[in-house]
Amino acid sequence: MPELRKDPVIGRWVIIATERARRPGVFLDSQKNIFDDGPCSFCDNQDKEVFSVRPYSGASWRVRVVESGTSLLSGKDKFLHKAHGLYDVVNDYGTHEVVIETPEHIANMADLSQEQIRMVFETYAVRYNELEKNNIFQYVIAYKNYGYAAGSRRIGHSRSQIIATPVIPFSAKEKLAGAKKYFVYHERCLYCDMIQQEMQAKIRIVAESEHFLAITPFAPRFVFETWVLPKKHNCDFSKGVVGYENDLAGLMKVVLGKIKVGLDDPAYNYVIHSAPFRRSRGEKDPGTKWKTLTEDYHWHIEVLPRLTRVAGFEKGSGFYISSIPPENAAEFLREVKV
Amino acid sequence: MPELRKDPVIGRWVIIATERARRPGVFLDSQKNIFDDGPCSFCDNQDKEVFSVRPYSGASWRVRVVESGTSLLSGKDKFLHKAHGLYDVVNDYGTHEVVIETPEHIANMADLSQEQIRMVFETYAVRYNELEKNNIFQYVIAYKNYGYAAGSRRIGHSRSQIIATPVIPFSAKEKLAGAKKYFVYHERCLYCDMIQQEMQAKIRIVAESEHFLAITPFAPRFVFETWVLPKKHNCDFSKGVVGYENDLAGLMKVVLGKIKVGLDDPAYNYVIHSAPFRRSRGEKDPGTKWKTLTEDYHWHIEVLPRLTRVAGFEKGSGFYISSIPPENAAEFLREVKV
Repeated sequence: MPELRKDPVIGRWVIIATERARRPGVFLDSQKNIFDDGPCSFCDNQDKEVFSVRPYSGASWRVRVVESGTSLLSGKDKFLHKAHGLYDVVNDYGTHEVVIETPEHIANMADLSQEQIRMVFETYAVRYNELEKNNIFQYVIAYKNYGYAAGSRRIGHSRSQIIATPVIPFSAKEKLAGAKKYFVYHERCLYCDMIQQEMQAKIRIVAESEHFLAITPFAPRFVFETWVLPKKHNCDFSKGVVGYENDLAGLMKVVLGKIKVGLDDPAYNYVIHSAPFRRSRGEKDPGTKWKTLTEDYHWHIEVLPRLTRVAGFEKGSGFYISSIPPENAAEFLREVKV
Repeated sequence: MPELRKDPVIGRWVIIATERARRPGVFLDSQKNIFDDGPCSFCDNQDKEVFSVRPYSGASWRVRVVESGTSLLSGKDKFLHKAHGLYDVVNDYGTHEVVIETPEHIANMADLSQEQIRMVFETYAVRYNELEKNNIFQYVIAYKNYGYAAGSRRIGHSRSQIIATPVIPFSAKEKLAGAKKYFVYHERCLYCDMIQQEMQAKIRIVAESEHFLAITPFAPRFVFETWVLPKKHNCDFSKGVVGYENDLAGLMKVVLGKIKVGLDDPAYNYVIHSAPFRRSRGEKDPGTKWKTLTEDYHWHIEVLPRLTRVAGFEKGSGFYISSIPPENAAEFLREVKV
């Protein structure tokens, strides 16, 4: 049975996929690039449907959510959190869903219509709200791995993934902790302040819509890393996006299009960062005077082009190196016509 | 001038190498693997020598430390820490040194003699102690990028790198914070407790020497990730390694040899994790009752084979996935004969 295990030093949860355990020798094969060579398993998908967008009952789907065929988490067993001496373990309670973003065989979300992208973001929101009903889940993360260097094993059909877990992934934990520290000190949202500063400075703006701002962050990990921030404060993606889905879809199409055209269709990840569920459930925030803290975090999307092997260097030196300043990256992307 | 910039959310410092700034198009070339095709620039190295190990005065060197020809940090300017609105910037004060580990053209440290590896670790300690004399430096990190997937641009000659900075890299910060939290609660070192538990459980031991233990961690990020831990507590590498250099070299040769032979000579990183200098300088540890806290951290070495593209998946989902349990990885490595 797969397990979630927590690193005892820094508190990072990792998934130990014991059921997929392979002989060590097999790892060397997994290095090879896997391209779609057979028929596309997303064009005519037979996996169990969880949700779909259809213009009318009985019509064929426009966006379809299915249980992952290579699920990392099953959720079939009872939730169990236990100790192994000083270590923490949780069994594999969770869900892993695949969002097939279009019935057409189109690889890059940048090439979908704005309407189609809008339906994808609406679909994420529906799934967040549905998964929130399970009180064991603390966190849902929607993300995309596009291209081999971004962790995708098969290319060719635009899709993304949704994972729900009873623990908070480390990438969210460290952001939540940092944003809260700023809020406790300033009693203002760090992201709201950042948006204000970036809109004045203008030098890191990639694109802008009525309700969203796309910037290259001041201290990026990846060259051409881009953050898409809603101008209106909300800690939760599924609540904050309501009414702005079409505006967001338009800006995402512009940002992903600029990355595709300007950088020769690179691999990329995007990740939606949202607050854990406990907040919207009205639980008391421990250690603060706020009963239900919703002001300290600000949902947003990170787009991470994977052009360089920075991760290799980072694991060694502990430092990410950006060999192009984010101001130059923003200027370059601003000028790419899409 | 290059800059160190701090991410305002999570506090991660990144190096913005503005002087190496390239046109965006050039990035696509940097994706290509670069092999040694000309004469080796380490066999007959002409870079400025910082330190060397020589059996007698005037003899040729056995280990040689030089200023990096492609330095990330120069240290030529005055140290300056300033704000840009809510952002933090430090100019590029720091050093970046290359340790040429052998005069012979040998690629993998696993193939060096134990004596040669011992001299490399002795060299690190000499440089740590020397760099500590500069009161602006808060942290020194010694690390190795072996092979392309680990971030090395040229292969063929065994070497490693030393970076000294006026800030603490995020990979160290998060470990220091976690270990301290455990210490403040238990008044015991987390790593000492972990060593005790691992020596009893035995299932994650890769190899062991009189003074060091090599284990696969309970919640690894990378398949076959291995930690080399000194059994005797010390927060500082350069102090803790004294007297045990030869024992450590023997165990490192075994661990790197098992990884090379068992996993088909994969790319790997290793990183020495040590406490920041402020401790050994006797500065008061803020927010605790301990005047000079040395008990809460435990120096160690992380060896990170780079067999899978986990980093891609991790950036998307927020979770590292280990498709082989560390207990199986340890068993496999234990059985590899070197």
